[in-house]
Amino acid sequence: MFMSTRIRVKNLDESLKFYIEVMGMKLKERYQNDVNNGEVAVVVSEDGGPEIELNYYKEGSKFNEPYSGGQELDHLAFWLGKDYDNFLSEARKKGYDTVLEVKSPTNRYSFIKDPNGIFILIA
Amino acid sequence: MFMSTRIRVKNLDESLKFYIEVMGMKLKERYQNDVNNGEVAVVVSEDGGPEIELNYYKEGSKFNEPYSGGQELDHLAFWLGKDYDNFLSEARKKGYDTVLEVKSPTNRYSFIKDPNGIFILIA
Repeated sequence: MFMSTRIRVKNLDESLKFYIEVMGMKLKERYQNDVNNGEVAVVVSEDGGPEIELNYYKEGSKFNEPYSGGQELDHLAFWLGKDYDNFLSEARKKGYDTVLEVKSPTNRYSFIKDPNGIFILIA
Repeated sequence: MFMSTRIRVKNLDESLKFYIEVMGMKLKERYQNDVNNGEVAVVVSEDGGPEIELNYYKEGSKFNEPYSGGQELDHLAFWLGKDYDNFLSEARKKGYDTVLEVKSPTNRYSFIKDPNGIFILIA
């Protein structure tokens, strides 16, 4: 069974701050991973939904290769519903401005970017 | 609420074949996305868990940039449990050999790669 998406982050504290304080998720667990010389945190939305695992590889870890952007991870999708406008306004105050806004008679959504440059869909 | 992970794929049919025939997921929906000149498919495991959305951008789409690998998407995690050995054997027959196998007294897991080069954890 598909369990979860695991993203790599440049800085675990900074990424947790984003996923918790901006995206409204909560920390489920955080631990050292001695196998890969890393540190792991798992976040989940307050109201359920899938988890996201954040992986930080310490200096010296064989997985700590230079961080560059690729195309595999298209984006992570969040549903805000009627909190949409309020969310965007709050995110902007916290330094996360939209990088794209789409508004049509039938649809509206926006993208912001997380501290790693990952596109985050707000709908 | 965090909804789903959306990956970009090089070839939708080939990726669906992998996530359905190798990973045992089922197709939930598939549709054209005229907004971004793309085609989208959503897959979910037979026994539940989060969805994964596969995004294919057609030639001419502004999102159809060259596909290169990055570090943001660390891996996608699947739980096989007692089907672990059987799964790896079947995956191998289908052309997906393990790229890493870890076996310790307390843990065992493997990685294969999907048709896009995305690391898939099998545990």
